Amino acid sequence: MTPARPPEGAHAVARRHEGTAMSPSHEVTPIELPDGRVRVVVERVSPAVDDGRFPIKRVLGDRVVVEADCFADGHDAVACSLLWRTGGDGAWHSAPMAQLGNDRWRAAFTVDTLGSWSYTVRAWVDPFLSWRRDFERRVELDDLRVAAREGALRIEEAAERADSGADTTLLKAWAQELNRAATGGAAAEDLRRLALDEARATVATRHPDLRHAWVHPRTYSVTVERPKARHSSWYEFFPRSAAGDGTRHGTFADCEAWLPYVQRMGFDVLYFPPIHPIGRVNRKGRNNTLEPQAGDPGSPWAIGAREGGHHAVLPELGTLEDFHRLVKRAGEHGIEIAMDIAFQCAPDHPWVQEHPQWFRKRADGSIQYAENPPKKYQDIYPFDFESDDWPALWRALAGVFEFWIGHGVKIFRVDNPHTKSFGFWEWAISTIRGRHPEVIFLSEAFTRPKVMHRLAKLGYSQSYTYFTWRNTKQELVDYFTELTRGPGREYFRPNAWPNTPDILPAALQWGGRAVFMSRVALAATLAANYGIYGPAFELQEARALRAGGEEYLDSEKFELRGWNRDDPASLAGFIAALNRARRDNPALQSDAGLRFIEVDNDQLLAYAKATEDRSNVVVCVVNLDPHHVQSGWLQLDLAALGLEVNQAFQMHDLLSGQHFLWQGPRNYVSLDPQRSPAHVMQLRSRLRRESDFDYFL
Amino acid sequence: MTPARPPEGAHAVARRHEGTAMSPSHEVTPIELPDGRVRVVVERVSPAVDDGRFPIKRVLGDRVVVEADCFADGHDAVACSLLWRTGGDGAWHSAPMAQLGNDRWRAAFTVDTLGSWSYTVRAWVDPFLSWRRDFERRVELDDLRVAAREGALRIEEAAERADSGADTTLLKAWAQELNRAATGGAAAEDLRRLALDEARATVATRHPDLRHAWVHPRTYSVTVERPKARHSSWYEFFPRSAAGDGTRHGTFADCEAWLPYVQRMGFDVLYFPPIHPIGRVNRKGRNNTLEPQAGDPGSPWAIGAREGGHHAVLPELGTLEDFHRLVKRAGEHGIEIAMDIAFQCAPDHPWVQEHPQWFRKRADGSIQYAENPPKKYQDIYPFDFESDDWPALWRALAGVFEFWIGHGVKIFRVDNPHTKSFGFWEWAISTIRGRHPEVIFLSEAFTRPKVMHRLAKLGYSQSYTYFTWRNTKQELVDYFTELTRGPGREYFRPNAWPNTPDILPAALQWGGRAVFMSRVALAATLAANYGIYGPAFELQEARALRAGGEEYLDSEKFELRGWNRDDPASLAGFIAALNRARRDNPALQSDAGLRFIEVDNDQLLAYAKATEDRSNVVVCVVNLDPHHVQSGWLQLDLAALGLEVNQAFQMHDLLSGQHFLWQGPRNYVSLDPQRSPAHVMQLRSRLRRESDFDYFL
Repeated sequence: MTPARPPEGAHAVARRHEGTAMSPSHEVTPIELPDGRVRVVVERVSPAVDDGRFPIKRVLGDRVVVEADCFADGHDAVACSLLWRTGGDGAWHSAPMAQLGNDRWRAAFTVDTLGSWSYTVRAWVDPFLSWRRDFERRVELDDLRVAAREGALRIEEAAERADSGADTTLLKAWAQELNRAATGGAAAEDLRRLALDEARATVATRHPDLRHAWVHPRTYSVTVERPKARHSSWYEFFPRSAAGDGTRHGTFADCEAWLPYVQRMGFDVLYFPPIHPIGRVNRKGRNNTLEPQAGDPGSPWAIGAREGGHHAVLPELGTLEDFHRLVKRAGEHGIEIAMDIAFQCAPDHPWVQEHPQWFRKRADGSIQYAENPPKKYQDIYPFDFESDDWPALWRALAGVFEFWIGHGVKIFRVDNPHTKSFGFWEWAISTIRGRHPEVIFLSEAFTRPKVMHRLAKLGYSQSYTYFTWRNTKQELVDYFTELTRGPGREYFRPNAWPNTPDILPAALQWGGRAVFMSRVALAATLAANYGIYGPAFELQEARALRAGGEEYLDSEKFELRGWNRDDPASLAGFIAALNRARRDNPALQSDAGLRFIEVDNDQLLAYAKATEDRSNVVVCVVNLDPHHVQSGWLQLDLAALGLEVNQAFQMHDLLSGQHFLWQGPRNYVSLDPQRSPAHVMQLRSRLRRESDFDYFL
Repeated sequence: MTPARPPEGAHAVARRHEGTAMSPSHEVTPIELPDGRVRVVVERVSPAVDDGRFPIKRVLGDRVVVEADCFADGHDAVACSLLWRTGGDGAWHSAPMAQLGNDRWRAAFTVDTLGSWSYTVRAWVDPFLSWRRDFERRVELDDLRVAAREGALRIEEAAERADSGADTTLLKAWAQELNRAATGGAAAEDLRRLALDEARATVATRHPDLRHAWVHPRTYSVTVERPKARHSSWYEFFPRSAAGDGTRHGTFADCEAWLPYVQRMGFDVLYFPPIHPIGRVNRKGRNNTLEPQAGDPGSPWAIGAREGGHHAVLPELGTLEDFHRLVKRAGEHGIEIAMDIAFQCAPDHPWVQEHPQWFRKRADGSIQYAENPPKKYQDIYPFDFESDDWPALWRALAGVFEFWIGHGVKIFRVDNPHTKSFGFWEWAISTIRGRHPEVIFLSEAFTRPKVMHRLAKLGYSQSYTYFTWRNTKQELVDYFTELTRGPGREYFRPNAWPNTPDILPAALQWGGRAVFMSRVALAATLAANYGIYGPAFELQEARALRAGGEEYLDSEKFELRGWNRDDPASLAGFIAALNRARRDNPALQSDAGLRFIEVDNDQLLAYAKATEDRSNVVVCVVNLDPHHVQSGWLQLDLAALGLEVNQAFQMHDLLSGQHFLWQGPRNYVSLDPQRSPAHVMQLRSRLRRESDFDYFL
């Protein structure tokens, strides 16, 4: 990796060559022609999202492996380098690319600072390499002598380009020596040995002739985030219910008492629904009724009242200082507080008076509340992103992020981003990330696939998924194959949730404890990012508001609840084991290494996750049937797991502590959902100690 | 299809929005923001070659079917149109696109003039359509009345945009009527009927609100050529051998006598190797020897001598006037003369003296002849495309095309285009095509796949293929599936050759008459463009220069030959039947409709070709084994052929005249290679007359 001449100059040529339509007139003057001496082509650079329109995503320390098709006309040798830099204006670095065959080339670089990186590919027809390759194949002495003199010229040119360092001295001496030999009657063998000197050729190739180099005109970009963007475990919690039995409104101070519990379960993100003042106009009552009783707290998503809007804290929760202290305490427990950003206003939000032009009006002069006829949401006014005052609106909304970043929040879960304009998000996220590259954005868009993907492309670090409704083996295999192998793998980081305050899926309503266990095991092992809405989840709250719906009965969205975190039936211990497995196994901290495993039972889902170097492999098997023992034979791809055909290997179940000795591709599994519906097994290809044999099946 | 406002204005906005990186500063001023009111997105426009870097290819009269993903945030209705125009500056036309589901939209336009066309997609959030859709779902009378007043405003705006024609009058009246009804206490049913008036809504949608429309920033282009670019039958012939017995040098006048023969066989392109003066320096002798005998004519590809270069005619063939007359006579036979353009010079080509800077020099001052060490081609000097005088070289080479176009040639087969620079070809072809859109270019590049594809992308109308070496069933299925279903289908038009003067494939050397028949049948039916090098082909010349090689013995490349076109063993009649089938069946005139058919015998290759509307379907079965009868069961996809499950249908073999009555998906075929190794069967789904039954198997 050597610092390279910045390719801007070549870029300008490249753009002229690549970007413009050819003149339709035959009477062209030389000035109108692209530089015709550029003979090399660079095509199909990967990775690239929409041909480079959007950045790919990586985290700190990742290797970015770049490939491209590079070739020229004729038989001359082609060489190419990967160029990359941090930010928009750093120095370009370069590394030679290696040939993969079929005109495909590859190189990699490592991203070691947060923020935006760029890369592109430069290629050139290399006269020195062409000469050297041809020289090796020449036979006749006369021919060799002429060719040796040509080689001396090429080496001389490289010496000039080396610009008077040690390389210049070495190359000049080599050129003179070669010239003397060629003109002084040296024998073929001597000429050959001298001309093909390996060590000195390496020096010459350090100074290639780039006069006719071509740089791909597109600069591809990479958004580099902190590792938590790729691997995080979320726990969603209503601070209003932190006080204990649900009779008193919880406070930030009460939340501090929950931190050890959340830490013991192994979550590293504690996410709160909106903590702002809640509107009083058209406030919702318990169970989403339209007539609230005195003391009903309303929905936290109906943001804004006389106490303030998106910059204020609901007085019942405490003060901004209390919030500060909670953020600090959470940090001491290894937990970050994630905030919910919901861009909408209760009718009594101060902005409704201050900026009426940010809202759409109906023909009768009233402000248009949120609706999807015949449904009406009178307690919420959406912003009008077609407002003529949109620049002020955009700045105000971006300012909300800035405000809370200023108060220590670095993770934002954004509510319904798909009902705000894409242009706003692209601008806002890139602007905020430019100043605060450590900030993580989670898109809560449960909507059509292309809308969800666009939000991920334009900058969201993580995205909610359809996992919540994918239950059968085929559904799960199809969906996670698409997520981890489709084009989205470069920009769409799934965050899988078995439940949310809005969604109590039918499976959880009817399947009992075993389904709660299998769903959280799937989320935690299929996806590197996952979350649960608790304590409803670990306490297996399964009562729906009405049959056929997905709303919780007595939802915390509209009332205070009390939760007994010491309930002996709680799944907290099971979840803690899952999160421990995630912490200890790098394979579970990325989605790239997911491969499904064939198993001859449609109720058993099996998959492996492996690190790139296969130093860590986890094999998971989940029984999707909550009622019956299911068993079957797995058909492992041993090579993909880094195993020899006849090798015995140990599978260590990280949930039960059991050890299994497996051998060969076919292995038997049986899971009783009443005990545990899942194996999460670490592969250990060498046995560690004699006592391990105690546990063999 | 109505002429639309040119989208240039929207383009400028689009480019600003799409193309530039967002400012990394949080302190943005409104002027730096993109227009945030544009909420719609256009993605993944297809067809597109390398994201629009290169044009797609079509022929006159084709429908160009364009699709795109179009969507916006939120729930508002989105509409979009396909925009297209001829040339770079014609008026834009537009057509509404229809929804296909999953946010995909489609529309089409027809290309009815030669040359370059452009297309792109415009989308917008449509306030009128949003209002109308929501209105249908509203329930309460108060709500309907307010909504009706809003609708009146939308209709009023459409009336303004209609700009005072009949539509304005109609829409203004409608708006007034609706407003009166809304404020005058009309009943819900009356309001609904009036607001949702279908006929007047159609008028309103003709004048959409495009203020916040978005036009995809890429203008995609189409190269429209004449139908022969897609469907042509080539006969390659050495004029030097036109005289009869090979003792006298053939002339253009002698060639005239071959025209009826070529016409009877059904070829429409007669292609000559280079017709220019042949170099005397380092001339090759018979069978590619280095010592020519007196009278040896040399290789026509060693172009240029004292008589002239690429603008001159070899005196032995006649004069430029003779050539003119031959072109005209050929036209009278429905045949076009294709010319071979080989950009290289014999050492005695006039350009070598006039423009020494166009050639590379070795260290000893000699000009670098063509070589691929240790092989040397001393009779040919390649051009140096890295010459500093490249603009003059490019103009001179393009001038060769212009010269011969001026002399009536409109089809060029280009020799080894992959050893000349890509930039030159892109410039030259687009320049020439801009002036002469009827000119067809065939790329004779037998080289690496990506190089061949690049040449096709940058403008070649047709391309040589690997068909020449694809013999087994699996090879043929894989290769033609790639050609007709891979990305190349938009730009790479295969031209399939079973032999060329350079290539006598091993299969033809050893397989006998049956292989000649099967290979030409495959070429003529798998590919809409194909050619043979004759009379060597139809007379089954199979003698190779040396075992294991592919060079012909006594090749016409280095000597005169005599051919007996009345040889009773000739395949001319068989070839004529193939070309007749091609002429009469539109399905064989395009590669788009190729689908392989399952058959339970690896020696039988079966496939169907169909027109888009399935009005013409041809089913081919070829026995790849030249020695034995092979039979098997075809498994037809009846739906793909436009047939009902239980329908009987007739297969009419266009080669043998046999008729077969088939029914259902499974049908039996048996082919004796000693009679004919191929069925080329036209599907007739209705029986035509009773007597057809005579022929049923």
